Order: sequence, then C-alpha cells, then structure tokens
Amino acid sequence: MAVGEASFPEMPAIPGVRLGSAMAGIKKANRRDLVVIEAPEGARVAGAFTRNAFCAAPVTVAREHLASGEAARYLVINTGNANAGTGEVGLRDARATCAELARLAGVAGEAVLPFSTGVIGETLPMETLLAGLPAALAALEEGGQAWHQAAEGILTTDTRPKGASVTLALGEETVTINGIAKGSGMIQPNMATMLAFVATDASLDEALLDELLRETVERSFNCITVDGDTSTNDACVLISTQRGARIESDEAVAVFRNGLQRVMTELAQAIIRDGEGATKFVTLQVGGARTRREALDVAFTVAHSPLVKTALYASDANWGRILAAVGRAPVADFDVSRVAIDLGEVRLVEAGGRASGYTEEAGSAVMAREEIPIRIELGRGEESATVWTTDLSHEYVSINADYRS
Amino acid sequence: MAVGEASFPEMPAIPGVRLGSAMAGIKKANRRDLVVIEAPEGARVAGAFTRNAFCAAPVTVAREHLASGEAARYLVINTGNANAGTGEVGLRDARATCAELARLAGVAGEAVLPFSTGVIGETLPMETLLAGLPAALAALEEGGQAWHQAAEGILTTDTRPKGASVTLALGEETVTINGIAKGSGMIQPNMATMLAFVATDASLDEALLDELLRETVERSFNCITVDGDTSTNDACVLISTQRGARIESDEAVAVFRNGLQRVMTELAQAIIRDGEGATKFVTLQVGGARTRREALDVAFTVAHSPLVKTALYASDANWGRILAAVGRAPVADFDVSRVAIDLGEVRLVEAGGRASGYTEEAGSAVMAREEIPIRIELGRGEESATVWTTDLSHEYVSINADYRS
Repeated sequence: MAVGEASFPEMPAIPGVRLGSAMAGIKKANRRDLVVIEAPEGARVAGAFTRNAFCAAPVTVAREHLASGEAARYLVINTGNANAGTGEVGLRDARATCAELARLAGVAGEAVLPFSTGVIGETLPMETLLAGLPAALAALEEGGQAWHQAAEGILTTDTRPKGASVTLALGEETVTINGIAKGSGMIQPNMATMLAFVATDASLDEALLDELLRETVERSFNCITVDGDTSTNDACVLISTQRGARIESDEAVAVFRNGLQRVMTELAQAIIRDGEGATKFVTLQVGGARTRREALDVAFTVAHSPLVKTALYASDANWGRILAAVGRAPVADFDVSRVAIDLGEVRLVEAGGRASGYTEEAGSAVMAREEIPIRIELGRGEESATVWTTDLSHEYVSINADYRS
Repeated sequence: MAVGEASFPEMPAIPGVRLGSAMAGIKKANRRDLVVIEAPEGARVAGAFTRNAFCAAPVTVAREHLASGEAARYLVINTGNANAGTGEVGLRDARATCAELARLAGVAGEAVLPFSTGVIGETLPMETLLAGLPAALAALEEGGQAWHQAAEGILTTDTRPKGASVTLALGEETVTINGIAKGSGMIQPNMATMLAFVATDASLDEALLDELLRETVERSFNCITVDGDTSTNDACVLISTQRGARIESDEAVAVFRNGLQRVMTELAQAIIRDGEGATKFVTLQVGGARTRREALDVAFTVAHSPLVKTALYASDANWGRILAAVGRAPVADFDVSRVAIDLGEVRLVEAGGRASGYTEEAGSAVMAREEIPIRIELGRGEESATVWTTDLSHEYVSINADYRS
C-alpha cells in the first residue's frame, strides 16, 4: 500500500559519481541487495546518523571512517540484514566488508563507508556478501539508470524506489543534486529507519557541506514519522564531487540550500507516502508556538497518537481525538482556549472548542482525500514546524506482525 | 477481545456507600448508562484527575466542587458522552446535572461531583440524562449487586465490568476497600481514559486520604498504557466513610496503603487485560535505572513502540525491536553494553547484544503465552519501575477506525 502514484524521476549523471548494484542473495535470491556508490577523488563526504543508543555496527564503522581523516571514496550498502545487535562479530563483519571492497578498488579501508538495512540481530552472511562485491563494482555507472537501480537495491519493505533530483542555476553555471532513499517502517525523527544518499557536483567547503546536511536533514527526515520507532541504522550521506560551481557567496549558498532542502524533503515525503500500510499522507503544521521545539512536540504528539492515526485511516474527522492529543503534548502553561485547528480549508476547532460553523459533512469531505493537511494554531508565539506522517491501518499491523515470518 | 478470564469479585457492602444505576438512553437504549454513588454524611472524598490540558467540563466542575469546602456526597457518572470539547455549554450542562441531583437528594450543588465518558465533542442530551436521575437514585443500594451494576453502568468499549475488593485485618478490626473501574482505549499515564471509584469504611485524615490516593494511583493507573493517548476525562475518586477502623499508626497506614495499592493495581491491570483489541497482557519491569523517572521512560518507550506491540501480537520474540526501543529512550549517557533483557525465564539480550544461549524456540515458547513478562536491566543504578501494557492487534485498528460509525 502507498499513497498516490510515484514515478522515479529522470536523473542526470553527476560526473564522477558512479553507482553499481548486484544480486548477492543476502536474504532473497533474484533481487538487488548490494549497492556500491563511488565518489571521485577529491570529493567531500558528510554523514548524519541515527541517535539510537543501540546503533548498528555499520553506523559505528562509518562514523569511525568518516572521522579517520581518510577521504571517503566508496559507500557499500546491503539490504536484507541490518547487522544490528550483533556485537563484536557485527563490527568485525562491517570492517571486513570495507576491507574487501577497498582491496578490490585499490583504496584504504577507511575510504569505505558501510551501510546495512533489514532484520536486526542476525549476523551478515559474509561469504555471500563479499562474493557479490565484484559484480557491484563491475556495474558502476554514472547514468540515470544506475541511480534507479541503486534506489531499488537499498529497499526493504518499501513498495517503490525513491529518488529526487534538482538542477539549479547559479549565474551562468548549473549544479545538480541527486538523491535516493529507502525506508517505510520504523520511521521517526533522529532518524527515521532510512538510508539516503545524496550527491552533487557543487563545490563546497567541508564545514558548509556538513552544516547544510544537518540543517536540511533536521527539516526533512527528522520531521517525518510513521510509527515513532527510530532505527539503529539510519544514515544520510551527502557527497560533493567538488567539480562544479563553487558555493560560497551568500546568494549561491541560499540557492543551493534551497535546492538541497527540496531534494531532502521530497525524499522524506516519498518515505512517508510509502509508509508501511499508509493510505493517507498527512501534513501537520503547528503554528503560534513559543519555540520550534514546542511546535515539534505538539506535531509529534498528534502524529504518534494511535487514536488520531486510526481516525485518519477511517477518514473520520474526529477532531476530539486531535484536540485530546494536542492537550497532552508537553507544553508548559498551555492555555487551550487559544487553540484553533483547521482540516484543509475547514475550521474544526476555535477557541479550544468545536468551531461554530463546523459540519461533519465538511470535515468528512477533507478526510476522504488521500492527502490531508492539518493546521494547529497554538496562539502563544511566533514559531512553527511541519511534520509529515501517515495513518495506522490494518495493513501496518499485518506488515509488522508478519515481517519475520 | 480481552486477555484471560475475569469474573467480577464478590464485594461486601461498605455501610453508608450506596450505588444506583439506570438505563437513561443517553446514547443507546437498554443499557445501564447512568450511575449515582452516594457517600454517607461525614465521609471524606479525594480525587485525582487527568492532566490533559483539554480537560472535559465534568473534570473542571468536579475539581471546583471538591475544592469548594462543601463535603462531597454524590457522584453522578454517565457513559455514552464525554461532555468534552463542549465549551461553555458543557460546563453549564455539568453544573445543571449536579444541581438537579442535588435538588432531588436535598444537598448543595457543590456536594455532587460529575463524571462523563464516551464520545468527545457532542453536547450531553440533557433532557434524557436528567430524566434518568430519579431512577438511579431510587435504585441506590449497598450490596455487592449494586457495585456490580454500577461497574456495568460506567463502561464504554470495555468488554467486561471491572472490580476489586480487599478486606484487611487491623488488630481486632477489619476494613474493606471496594473499587470499580472502566477504561480500555485511550489509555496512558496521567491518566488513562479511565474512571475509577473506590470506597472504604476506614477512617482517615483528609491529608492522608489524599496522599494515599495520589501515591497508589501513581503506581497503578499511571503505570498502564494501551496506546499512549490520555483522555480528557480521567478521574479516580476515593471515598472514606469514616465509620470504620482509624488509620493512624504507622502499622495501620502500612497495611491500609498496601491494601489500597492492591485494589488500584488490580483495577489498573483489569483495564489492560480488557485493552482495546488486547490479545496479550505484558508486564514491563525496568531495573538498574538511576531514577524511577528514567526507568519509567524506558518502560513507556518500549510499551508505546508499535513495532514491539505488533511483534507481541504476532508472538514473535523480536528482541531486536525491544532493543531498538530501549536504545531510543530518553536516557542520558546510556551505555548500552550493560543492558540485559529477559523474556519470562529466557535471557534474550546480555551485554547489549543477543544472549549467547538464546534460541528462537525458547523465545517463541514464552511469546506464545497470553501473559508476557519482560524484564529490562539497565545496569546503571538501583531504581526500577513496572508498567503494564498490551499488544497492537488488527482488532485495535478495527475498534478505533469504526468507533463513531
């Protein structure tokens, strides 16, 4: 199940960035499950990772390698097995994967960053995985098809590959930003169970690259939630080949930031549209908060409420459940008589109670749509936040009750 | 659906406490939906209420009346309509209900406390409700049948009435504590969507009555969760008739506190066993925490995880999901290598990874049971907490997606 139709975008090549995938047979035969992404010499790479205290072995190793001073040249991603909760064996396996790819590619082991997604708690089938590396390397290509195949090769319970691409004009030059992502369950901020790999030909200082990655992740992947569960493996990597236009002037930074945010947000939204069992795509905008944190707290409290989520699934404009969820958000000195809630163009709640002109018919008409915007105005400040989420359907329960069987 | 069998306990009368119920037809015909509880003159009454910022009109009025200085003599409870999100009309209706009962019973309006449970956002059908009051008053009785019928009269989506009773020996005297409760969805701490009415013949000072109510609620109703949603209407009331043994000496207080905790915990557990769509009764014990708050944070993070809950529903010993939930709990400086997790008598996780002797067979055998104990040891302190919860089933989604239809 997924919300709306999604076609994979046309992606222009980013010179020097090559992607190759293989069917290694890690968990299932005849599906792409091993992906290698190559960054050209001189590229800069920044990463953002899960904040789950139980981070998976590849996350630990990727962080170490990024911090090693050795420039990252290869990403290796497997699906079917998360290599999480695997202790010392898991760390050894992640390092061995990097070492073998490094040997085949002729780089240092620290130039390789590993990523895994799939079942937690089982050790990687190392023989199978390592045996697949030559085929993935041999398949390295720059073109749009390679991006598409890589997007397929990182999926787990996703129903479709996810990609986004923008080309930005900077004076007489253009820069391109391509991104692919996976994730559909265990989605929540910090980070969603998701992997995202984004590359650009733009040239950026290391500090700026890192800052823009963090800033755009904060307002995209960290603002989505399917079920409130954070994965042990989440990662988002941004590669800059340093071959294209220089992003330095205030104007260039603004244009690039804006384009990067678009790619990140499109990928994040694609994850939500493909959320496990999703039948609705819900945009929760909270305004009038004293701080952005407060706006996020209210938005996530509503987004995580199973009663709100089941009402969304039922297309039931049950404003009482939204109001009750807003009321239990961790907000100090909360004067609920200032709260207003809009469902699309329909006012549900004003002054903390049912809006006078509200009719069930009007509410139901909005709830019947696949895309549902909910705006919550707290009336106590100037800050706001937007969070994207899904409903809670029978399909969600089926997917997660059956995942390992 | 509900976990295990439950028979309503035999309840001895508590002299002076009378209960009467009626079929007023508030939402449906031919079901008990209006209950009156009478406390004798000289009784002391304490109440604990929802912390939801959007508290319902009856909660506001009950708080006012308790604070008025007028001794509470009557509780009036309706099901079928929560009188929440109803603004000024709701407050007027709650006060009018109290006033009418007060007139019929010959007491001051402030001597009546109102309680409502049911759908949010619709105004009370006042004519119907008020017309039912004489029948409820006429039915006032002291015996066990009256307690049973009152327990039935406060239900919403519950599948069975919930009661608990203890009789305590205090030297040569005995005291009795009876309690009834309702609640099965929108259950979470502070407080669950629940109403609980507890009475005792024991004689207690007002301050002690209040302290014991708060203390035992904290370790019972505030430690249960079905879906993390707090109701706008939750309330727990404790009536002491002041006619029985005096609770004053340290020993008497200890015995009484223990008995009261048993009644509260049994009622809270009964709510979980009857949780919406529940097929499992899960006891989450977190130990080795630095503070009780930290232990509760870990327990509730696991208890609210939809991935853990769907695994419980599937009887899947998916320790990776439990571990991932523990890892995202808001705990500072969390050294996950000290974490151990036991599922019943089976060790799942030790030193932050899969326990060496663990087998899927052993885990599955425990998960197949209806009652599942999970113990999480953090290895960083001496504090602990216990939380009770349920799984997340198809039935939960059905109940909450269909509730208003």
